[in-house]
Amino acid sequence: MTDESYTQYFKLSMKFFEGHRTPIQGGRVRKVNKMNKTLIGVMGPGDGATEDEMKAAFELGSLIAREGWVLVTGGRSAGVMDAASRGAKSAGGLTVGILPSKVARDVSEAVDVPIFTDMGQARNNINVLSSRAVVACGMSAGTASEIALALKAKKKVVLLKLNQESEAFFKSLGGDDVVVAENPREAVDAVKKIIGA
Amino acid sequence: MTDESYTQYFKLSMKFFEGHRTPIQGGRVRKVNKMNKTLIGVMGPGDGATEDEMKAAFELGSLIAREGWVLVTGGRSAGVMDAASRGAKSAGGLTVGILPSKVARDVSEAVDVPIFTDMGQARNNINVLSSRAVVACGMSAGTASEIALALKAKKKVVLLKLNQESEAFFKSLGGDDVVVAENPREAVDAVKKIIGA
Amino acid sequence: MTDESYTQYFKLSMKFFEGHRTPIQGGRVRKVNKMNKTLIGVMGPGDGATEDEMKAAFELGSLIAREGWVLVTGGRSAGVMDAASRGAKSAGGLTVGILPSKVARDVSEAVDVPIFTDMGQARNNINVLSSRAVVACGMSAGTASEIALALKAKKKVVLLKLNQESEAFFKSLGGDDVVVAENPREAVDAVKKIIGA
Amino acid sequence: MTDESYTQYFKLSMKFFEGHRTPIQGGRVRKVNKMNKTLIGVMGPGDGATEDEMKAAFELGSLIAREGWVLVTGGRSAGVMDAASRGAKSAGGLTVGILPSKVARDVSEAVDVPIFTDMGQARNNINVLSSRAVVACGMSAGTASEIALALKAKKKVVLLKLNQESEAFFKSLGGDDVVVAENPREAVDAVKKIIGA
Repeated sequence: MTDESYTQYFKLSMKFFEGHRTPIQGGRVRKVNKMNKTLIGVMGPGDGATEDEMKAAFELGSLIAREGWVLVTGGRSAGVMDAASRGAKSAGGLTVGILPSKVARDVSEAVDVPIFTDMGQARNNINVLSSRAVVACGMSAGTASEIALALKAKKKVVLLKLNQESEAFFKSLGGDDVVVAENPREAVDAVKKIIGA
Repeated sequence: MTDESYTQYFKLSMKFFEGHRTPIQGGRVRKVNKMNKTLIGVMGPGDGATEDEMKAAFELGSLIAREGWVLVTGGRSAGVMDAASRGAKSAGGLTVGILPSKVARDVSEAVDVPIFTDMGQARNNINVLSSRAVVACGMSAGTASEIALALKAKKKVVLLKLNQESEAFFKSLGGDDVVVAENPREAVDAVKKIIGA
Repeated sequence: MTDESYTQYFKLSMKFFEGHRTPIQGGRVRKVNKMNKTLIGVMGPGDGATEDEMKAAFELGSLIAREGWVLVTGGRSAGVMDAASRGAKSAGGLTVGILPSKVARDVSEAVDVPIFTDMGQARNNINVLSSRAVVACGMSAGTASEIALALKAKKKVVLLKLNQESEAFFKSLGGDDVVVAENPREAVDAVKKIIGA
Repeated sequence: MTDESYTQYFKLSMKFFEGHRTPIQGGRVRKVNKMNKTLIGVMGPGDGATEDEMKAAFELGSLIAREGWVLVTGGRSAGVMDAASRGAKSAGGLTVGILPSKVARDVSEAVDVPIFTDMGQARNNINVLSSRAVVACGMSAGTASEIALALKAKKKVVLLKLNQESEAFFKSLGGDDVVVAENPREAVDAVKKIIGA
């Protein structure tokens, strides 16, 4: 490619996302839209997750993928994080895992995009800030921190498979920003409503 | 100071903390001990704090200072953070504030050592990790995240002025790592027991 | 779906990534591999980037996408971050942007997966930890911190479009962990060698 | 103390910092000023520090303490961090260490206030943001990231004991925000000028 043609190519490409049709995609002419995808978080227990919670998480992940959303989890190869990611991959979705560690150990193999924070549990705040809405599936200290951080950031949270004390507490804490769902289908419908999809 | 005497001075100083007597403290000979101080965290609502919670926080700060402990809070000039820091200063204590921001705005004037994290609520994890024990005084989304992060880090938490749903939830979440106190005096006694002081 | 068939479906899906053929992908039988993708970081100036640096970043992004790697940048709609992301999208790649902010403002529209950290420049460490290798394109204070953090984390860094002082400094700092490239093609070849692709 | 007198005490104490004279300090009447102390950072190599750098760091710490400033370092029991903290303690100063870890291991015993971030090298950003001015003493990858992050945050940096490539690079990067000092005394004089003390 000559330098002149490269400059021309570059300038055209810079227009790529400005709503113009682009002539540079292998000859195909197509309308390009804004790329930022919708990320939905699923948070829940790791090693202490029950089979019931993991089953729900798997289905959640699958339904989230079917909506065309990107799944965000804590990324570890354990519990709800892992099951939700597997569910999303089983439906052909894209999965992001935001990890507490700095090395690729203990990462769910169902995570496409592992983000290594080396921040321990402070990464929980990144999980919720990166999610348009958060579904909590089951309860643990880490999950409780994620729900609380989401409410602090004015994010809406859908609760699934929480025990009575947990539900009562987070409803008293979050008011209308907290929605209780009976099953994964209801949870995803609640997310749809939250994000206006 | 000649270079030789400086080297000698340096070497002596390096022995400063090894349990030897030091000849370099303005002539006074004294035994020096390990310096790391005991930091105790007080967490609670900011702008939404009630007068009752602030009063308790002020007394907590005062009692913590009287024990010779360093007070750690979220550092903002609001609510429980501010009141606890004022209490500690009223008793001649040292106060550390770990702030969500990056600039010296909205910092409690009763904070001696402001730490600017520019991390928003992710700084809550630093608050609890830096505290040998945490006292929660009142409830808010931020406070809930701090209790949850403390329990996740296997820190013990003393609850003061929490409503019934909050107490029930955190007791179900934390088990023996959660202690309920009736008043600031009881809270500080619980901290003493926790840290073996 | 009956509860029994669901359990069976779930168990089969859990085997999805264990190297077995899966019967559950819409009838298609296929071998599934580990999902974790290879992330490559491109770091460089934001608002102060020159046209030459942006042109190189665009080409870098495009070449990275053509290798099947995921592009990681700081995610803002400025300078090298933006140009590299546009380049990757022009070649049909996947782009991740790890942002300093907590809200979707100032995000490059060529970023598929925006990660909101609310950590300011501390997010630079996440950028480099999440990248298998880092290409620095141009120089700024933020970029310098990213190269230094990458070297601290024992990551290898490819330098492109750096001035003489910068090259001399980082070579003296990083030794063999620093590779100088003359153009985007050389930079990508260096990355290939680094990650053993 | 009756409840009424407590309320009165509390209210008086809340006025404690408003510039009024306070009657509650053990009978002594005194004017109270704003409490936020001036924190000055000393950054430098850990395990790889030379004796010359540690000697300079010790003297820096000592001089900083003599100015009444609080010393901020990375807090580990190694290299420049440790030596500067020892120097500050030898002069009766107060020392803060902002640590990469989450547990009290590898903490300099000359640190009064250990802050545990569990953020690895991302804590470097907190070090510089919490410092009114930063003195870099010696060079390493971690130190380089701290100087770069300081410059990114528009903090002024004093360079001491840097090699020629490092000095040339950071001067080209930081312009007037970078000051080169020949010895600890000059470095502290430069800090004085920077903070207007």
